[in-house]
Amino acid sequence: MWLRNCWYVIAWDHEIPAADSPELFTRQVLNEPILVYRTHSGSLVALANKCCHRHAPLSKGLREGDSVRCGYHGLLFNAQGQCTHVPGMDSAPAKACVKTYPVAVKNKWVFVWMGDPALADLAKLPDNFSCDHPDWVHIPGYMHYDTPYLLIADNLLDFSHLSYVHAKTLGGTTAIAQARPLIEQVDDQGQRGVKVSRFVSNVGASPFYRKFREFDSNLDRWFVYDFLFPSTLLMHSGGRPVGDAPDDNSRAVLLHSCQTLTPETDTSTHYFFQQSHPATVQDETIKQIIFNSLIEAFNEDRDMITAQFHNLSANAEDEMMPLHFDSALIQFRALLKEAIAAER
Amino acid sequence: MWLRNCWYVIAWDHEIPAADSPELFTRQVLNEPILVYRTHSGSLVALANKCCHRHAPLSKGLREGDSVRCGYHGLLFNAQGQCTHVPGMDSAPAKACVKTYPVAVKNKWVFVWMGDPALADLAKLPDNFSCDHPDWVHIPGYMHYDTPYLLIADNLLDFSHLSYVHAKTLGGTTAIAQARPLIEQVDDQGQRGVKVSRFVSNVGASPFYRKFREFDSNLDRWFVYDFLFPSTLLMHSGGRPVGDAPDDNSRAVLLHSCQTLTPETDTSTHYFFQQSHPATVQDETIKQIIFNSLIEAFNEDRDMITAQFHNLSANAEDEMMPLHFDSALIQFRALLKEAIAAER
Amino acid sequence: MWLRNCWYVIAWDHEIPAADSPELFTRQVLNEPILVYRTHSGSLVALANKCCHRHAPLSKGLREGDSVRCGYHGLLFNAQGQCTHVPGMDSAPAKACVKTYPVAVKNKWVFVWMGDPALADLAKLPDNFSCDHPDWVHIPGYMHYDTPYLLIADNLLDFSHLSYVHAKTLGGTTAIAQARPLIEQVDDQGQRGVKVSRFVSNVGASPFYRKFREFDSNLDRWFVYDFLFPSTLLMHSGGRPVGDAPDDNSRAVLLHSCQTLTPETDTSTHYFFQQSHPATVQDETIKQIIFNSLIEAFNEDRDMITAQFHNLSANAEDEMMPLHFDSALIQFRALLKEAIAAER
Repeated sequence: MWLRNCWYVIAWDHEIPAADSPELFTRQVLNEPILVYRTHSGSLVALANKCCHRHAPLSKGLREGDSVRCGYHGLLFNAQGQCTHVPGMDSAPAKACVKTYPVAVKNKWVFVWMGDPALADLAKLPDNFSCDHPDWVHIPGYMHYDTPYLLIADNLLDFSHLSYVHAKTLGGTTAIAQARPLIEQVDDQGQRGVKVSRFVSNVGASPFYRKFREFDSNLDRWFVYDFLFPSTLLMHSGGRPVGDAPDDNSRAVLLHSCQTLTPETDTSTHYFFQQSHPATVQDETIKQIIFNSLIEAFNEDRDMITAQFHNLSANAEDEMMPLHFDSALIQFRALLKEAIAAER
Repeated sequence: MWLRNCWYVIAWDHEIPAADSPELFTRQVLNEPILVYRTHSGSLVALANKCCHRHAPLSKGLREGDSVRCGYHGLLFNAQGQCTHVPGMDSAPAKACVKTYPVAVKNKWVFVWMGDPALADLAKLPDNFSCDHPDWVHIPGYMHYDTPYLLIADNLLDFSHLSYVHAKTLGGTTAIAQARPLIEQVDDQGQRGVKVSRFVSNVGASPFYRKFREFDSNLDRWFVYDFLFPSTLLMHSGGRPVGDAPDDNSRAVLLHSCQTLTPETDTSTHYFFQQSHPATVQDETIKQIIFNSLIEAFNEDRDMITAQFHNLSANAEDEMMPLHFDSALIQFRALLKEAIAAER
Repeated sequence: MWLRNCWYVIAWDHEIPAADSPELFTRQVLNEPILVYRTHSGSLVALANKCCHRHAPLSKGLREGDSVRCGYHGLLFNAQGQCTHVPGMDSAPAKACVKTYPVAVKNKWVFVWMGDPALADLAKLPDNFSCDHPDWVHIPGYMHYDTPYLLIADNLLDFSHLSYVHAKTLGGTTAIAQARPLIEQVDDQGQRGVKVSRFVSNVGASPFYRKFREFDSNLDRWFVYDFLFPSTLLMHSGGRPVGDAPDDNSRAVLLHSCQTLTPETDTSTHYFFQQSHPATVQDETIKQIIFNSLIEAFNEDRDMITAQFHNLSANAEDEMMPLHFDSALIQFRALLKEAIAAER
């Protein structure tokens, strides 16, 4: 039911403790508990957070160099997941090992590959450039959802909800919902999914934009994003005073966002996100205000999606009614279903 | 498993916000989330609290006149449940609508009809007159149970428990449990169920009665009630000093109670209740004391029934042992089962 | 799945209220709610905590002499579980009764027999002598686990975990895990299980031992225990300065422990325990410090086992990998499984 041969974000880079820290970081992905730590040479290791012996979590053990010793009975595992010492034995059994996951870091996101390690392909990493780019500024965000990840993907694939869920934050006009986005399929150098382009002309600035500055005229606004396997949004969005030339950004709001969903279990999800603005605005107060405003908006989403999930759970047999809003999410779900089926 | 062609109380009238309030009231009945609101002409509307599009709760949306706009993607539903506007569409699809429920208000109780709307029959509304009658005074009550509603119905159908569960509140004597009530079947103008008449002679006043006044003699006490589909108790009860003539109420305690159970889910229940005393006692302090005392007693019931449900859940296969106490509840359960079967 | 023809500890003796107390003690064992109380002649009674009528817990009722009256409808049950009074009936039906459990007290532990009462055999009571012996001192302990009891039994059957889980409390050296214990089968006068003997020479004192006194030399340490059906540990353990004669205990730490596991449900467990030291140390402060230190260590176990259970629950199909550590627990589980099968 999950796409496995792909990269899932397990953490922001800063969440993984330093190599000399006694702390051990763990997070559950696709129902699997995973331990992530840094070797002293600077690489990252992802191991099943489950000793092969009695299945105790290794995260309750101790670092020893680049190895981890289980805190229950003392088995020592190296960075390749191989058990190298069992107390009371001269040598560890060869089959004593824990699963390892290919791990990659790109622009502050730490990814794990949940499928066949032989297929792990760095070309499939998304281009989350603004997560670590001198021209862009943001505060990294994380949120936990008690809903299946696909309900959140649905939300991100249909920005008409900005007019209603986010009327007082990211939206600010019903014109967003009235606009029909252009939806195209993406299948490009390992990246698959859909591209959604939504343009809204001559509308007010969103309350969110007004955190940057005041506007005395209407804006032309745009939201152009790729939504890629397994569930990552990469978006350029912004607004430009009506009448300004398309290449004149002197008075425009420009944003780049990277957001990604990682299933924790069937019914819970990790949500990693950021919304970057140009580094020309180097003001810590504005940065924090923008982040707070984003969190406020993302809480609006979570409230709605959690309530929707509650309704869906109570009466699972009722069918939804597809409308024009749903073109992108229907396409994305179909592509994903096909890709999951192809893996089997 | 539930009787559907009948009225269930969803709220006290005062719980439903005014037509010009931004608040939207919702409650779950028979597993179905329902939205109730007032139109500006003063009637009540009950809609499925679930947008037909993506199943978001409409209660998280906004009133627009007598319509409600979904807070997720902006679909607008009128008081007939018909979608009249989809953002970005010239006209809403005819099949876009949400379920409506016949709704009725009688004496401050708001009822919804959970079965075939064509069969909705006002004659089936119970005679809860004291909920809104100038001769009677009470404070309206609501309580939530984490048990199936029938366990609470069982409790209300056998008042022998007053001697034990309510020894220090509503009971006050073991004679209540010793008395054998008269049990008759009710099938009268749309009302079906059982009538239970219990008379207890020459016993002490209950601690509850002593909240009204002191008594220097024993009382003759009575509890006469209908328990009607789906689960509504309508009761005259009271006590009269031994020796006073049956038509002399000058020193008697007279009460009228209306209580009703509405299943929320298979294992949780809404309980709406009041216990009225004559308006001749116009003392706000006594009214509050009586209400507090009733709440104390109803908490005694809830503690016991919740503990009973815990035992029943842990060992579902064990059988109960019917005793003389259970005549009324056995009859009521049999009638209800028959009526539910007849609906299918 | 549970051994039934055996004694399970339901309480420490001091937990059962006096015969003239209004309190009624209840605890769930093997999914069955049980009521335990004292008769005025000093014996103990264990009844199903579930009225035969409507399954209300008798513990919510009242003592009447050596009987208990149900707090829901007033049925009275005597110490043999027979109903002797139903309000409103001249005599109680003969079949109105609740299940009784053979009960025994031995050295402050209160046991119930969960199988066929005709087979209840006092010879099967474990020799928990130090729970009530003038030569030994302890504070009785109780802990609740939200895990199956066998995971805790596994922990107690393999003391190599002392080196890791209890590095800073009961362990203090990796030598405990390196030592190979002697494992023997026990089948002696009604007692069945395994005997585990682990000797560790010339190692440091544990932090736990240092609560008694300081040591200026290494110790020879030992842990010798029976682990008996259904899940009871009886252990002599201690440490003696290296070089002292085996019969010279003048500078030794000597301990006797009795610990037992009683399944509450499939996934929760009662844990009764004590660790006694010789009465020659009659210091209340030391007694309390020792108890606190034991609780600290047992919390370390519970943290680990609960985390292990979480991992096991998330991926039930994964197999554990048996290692040399597991000899005793594998033997004990096999014996128990065989005994459970033989009961059927």
